[in-house]
Amino acid sequence: MQFELTRKYLDDLREAILLNNEETLLDLVTDLHAADIGEILSELDTKEATVLYKVLDANMASDVLTYMEEEERENFLRSLSSKEIAEQFMDNLDSDDAADMLSMFPQEQKEEIISMIEDKQQARDIVDLLHYEEGTAGALMAKELIAVNINWSVSTTVKEMRKQAESIDQVFTVYVVDDEDILLGRLPLKKLLITPLKAQISDIYDPKIRSVKVDADQEDIANIMEKYDLVVLPVVDELGRLQGRITIDDVVDVIKEEAEKDYALASGISGSVESTDSIYTLTRARLPWLLIGLFGGVMGARVIELYEGDLQLYPEMAFFIPLIAAMGGNAGVQSSAIIVQGLANNSLGFSGLGAKLGKEFMVGLVNGLVCSLLIFGYNFFFNDSMNLSITVSCALLSVVVFATLFGTFVPLALDKYDIDPALATGPFITTVNDVLGLFIYFWIGHIFYIQP
Amino acid sequence: MQFELTRKYLDDLREAILLNNEETLLDLVTDLHAADIGEILSELDTKEATVLYKVLDANMASDVLTYMEEEERENFLRSLSSKEIAEQFMDNLDSDDAADMLSMFPQEQKEEIISMIEDKQQARDIVDLLHYEEGTAGALMAKELIAVNINWSVSTTVKEMRKQAESIDQVFTVYVVDDEDILLGRLPLKKLLITPLKAQISDIYDPKIRSVKVDADQEDIANIMEKYDLVVLPVVDELGRLQGRITIDDVVDVIKEEAEKDYALASGISGSVESTDSIYTLTRARLPWLLIGLFGGVMGARVIELYEGDLQLYPEMAFFIPLIAAMGGNAGVQSSAIIVQGLANNSLGFSGLGAKLGKEFMVGLVNGLVCSLLIFGYNFFFNDSMNLSITVSCALLSVVVFATLFGTFVPLALDKYDIDPALATGPFITTVNDVLGLFIYFWIGHIFYIQP
Repeated sequence: MQFELTRKYLDDLREAILLNNEETLLDLVTDLHAADIGEILSELDTKEATVLYKVLDANMASDVLTYMEEEERENFLRSLSSKEIAEQFMDNLDSDDAADMLSMFPQEQKEEIISMIEDKQQARDIVDLLHYEEGTAGALMAKELIAVNINWSVSTTVKEMRKQAESIDQVFTVYVVDDEDILLGRLPLKKLLITPLKAQISDIYDPKIRSVKVDADQEDIANIMEKYDLVVLPVVDELGRLQGRITIDDVVDVIKEEAEKDYALASGISGSVESTDSIYTLTRARLPWLLIGLFGGVMGARVIELYEGDLQLYPEMAFFIPLIAAMGGNAGVQSSAIIVQGLANNSLGFSGLGAKLGKEFMVGLVNGLVCSLLIFGYNFFFNDSMNLSITVSCALLSVVVFATLFGTFVPLALDKYDIDPALATGPFITTVNDVLGLFIYFWIGHIFYIQP
Repeated sequence: MQFELTRKYLDDLREAILLNNEETLLDLVTDLHAADIGEILSELDTKEATVLYKVLDANMASDVLTYMEEEERENFLRSLSSKEIAEQFMDNLDSDDAADMLSMFPQEQKEEIISMIEDKQQARDIVDLLHYEEGTAGALMAKELIAVNINWSVSTTVKEMRKQAESIDQVFTVYVVDDEDILLGRLPLKKLLITPLKAQISDIYDPKIRSVKVDADQEDIANIMEKYDLVVLPVVDELGRLQGRITIDDVVDVIKEEAEKDYALASGISGSVESTDSIYTLTRARLPWLLIGLFGGVMGARVIELYEGDLQLYPEMAFFIPLIAAMGGNAGVQSSAIIVQGLANNSLGFSGLGAKLGKEFMVGLVNGLVCSLLIFGYNFFFNDSMNLSITVSCALLSVVVFATLFGTFVPLALDKYDIDPALATGPFITTVNDVLGLFIYFWIGHIFYIQP
């Protein structure tokens, strides 16, 4: 039942491709799900993939397209003519997938492909969907759905549903609309099974229904579907007219993408790269963040340089430079991460900025005190200078408290100005905390330690 | 349509609770979804929550329970007697939610509550579910589903479905089983609508169905449902007998939890804490990781101490301590994060450890060279000592390359020994990289710079 891609399987496949052995190829992919074939294609190079792709039947071929990775899909589509794309895919795909695929082409070719779509309703649906901004409900929804009129009887409804259902893979919900297409409610399939055919829809439909506007943000949509455990969510326009539906599988992708984006940012990686990407791609995604760290390191060097004279007198001050820098970074990232997740989940509660900072101040104080006391104990036994011990502990406490507050404030401020708050958990904030931590350390050292 | 929790609303609610004004309370929560009431309850303290909870009707009350946060739900349940729990909740809840809730009680009370459940079928289902290990398909599934026998006709099926459907909120799929309950396929609802009543199920059912065993891991289940865009997945035992079904909303929670856990670990936070948690909880989740950083800092101090003599002669070596330490940490976390996400998404491809390390070596080399050249340029203009410039650049290159390889290796090794690889992106790895980076820096400095 379950397909698992093995190296052996890939070798067999590659051999069949090399020999152009269509029969073996068909044998190897028979009964596989489109998602499996998509996975296989992404392991092959474009040439190999094209050979395999050509043996698939039209329906499977367009399904497989939706499961391929974006980059490979684009490469593949570019190798086809507008006519081939229109005939082979645009008619067979769901409107949302078709619009997704079209969006990669320049305006001119887009129009050319659309003009060649045979099913004019599908062409209109795709044009509609192309208008919506990426990341909104409109761009996420499919136009395919089953809607029945509130004035129909159950028997008319069943007849109409049979017609409409043909073009839809899986029926989740039947929507009830009025003559103007305004969404009024839904019709549980269960009810349809147990109601006499003469009954009127208006008597049995459920008017309680949750919907979103076409311009709703995809993160908000994900939060709503998650919160209310929805499998499908209807989308309406400004007048409340039913425009399409968003299914949970599209939203799962959104949730995953958002989580992975945050994780990548926290780790100093831009975009969604994978270990199978090219060295160039991997480097490009990582180098900019390393350069931020490099710049921070140079700033740190300037700070220490300011105190070169002190260091010459008391070189043991240098011992604790990495400790101070690291602790500031660690404490700051902790605070930022909690705020970033709270913003994403809409779970920050109702306390104001002051209350949040006050609370984090307490957390920072406790953490800072524990760490300071421990390091004081260490220095007490292993270090001769009481002044150095006091300096390190005071600086550590200040740095942890400061970084905790700073880490809370920055993502909230970024969010206020519509900048992705997840930036605050990455190398940028760690670097700032490093440099400020060093400054605090040497400044306190200068007061407590070097001056007396 | 959409409920938004505002401070004003909460104030009104609190006032009604204080005055014990049942009518106003009911007004305020009428027409709200159980998820909204769950959200409201988590803003109130236990006393206030209990007052509000008492005005809800039994069905709503048990629904609300499933949407409450775990900690609050447990507090609330603890305030009830076994009899109240059994009567008010165990009968009304889906079997999986009921079992979830029971799992918090000690064995004795568990048995007591189960013995008081009126619906004996429900009691059996709950006992079954309690046997499965957390994190497996068995623990995630619900027993409620619609199954029809392959030997039935469509008319028998419709009759039986009406009976079975009563206890189920939403019908996703109708399963087809044989006399031994062995899962054979599924019956698309669409087909049921358009097939004559005399037809046999065996003629119209779809034998293609994907299922998982009861002991399948929840992360694998999430991957399967995501890959194949499934809304519901049947669970079978070792003999292939249908045991239950897992719905996508439970899996969305798993996906979110896994992502949040990884993110928390990368940020140095244990468990899923929120900014609304108590100062104690927040501190407990963060302090251990800071202590790891502290320990690393002390180790770093020991390393630098080894070279105290060199530092006294050349205090300018101290300038670049934070730069070296930070760059090692940053480069290592980048590599680890890519591996951790690859492991989670099962997208690491088929290359062996050697090939992976070889590729990362190249990435590290490019990144390291660019950074080293830039810092050499900086030192060339702003620093008098050519020896120091060479030392810093050589050390930086070595540290970046080393950290990149180490960051790739560690999560793979952890995963091999069934330890969560996400640990590798947290403060632990940064700390190790810090210390090793310092060692490399001073060692190179000793050779290139101090010895001549």
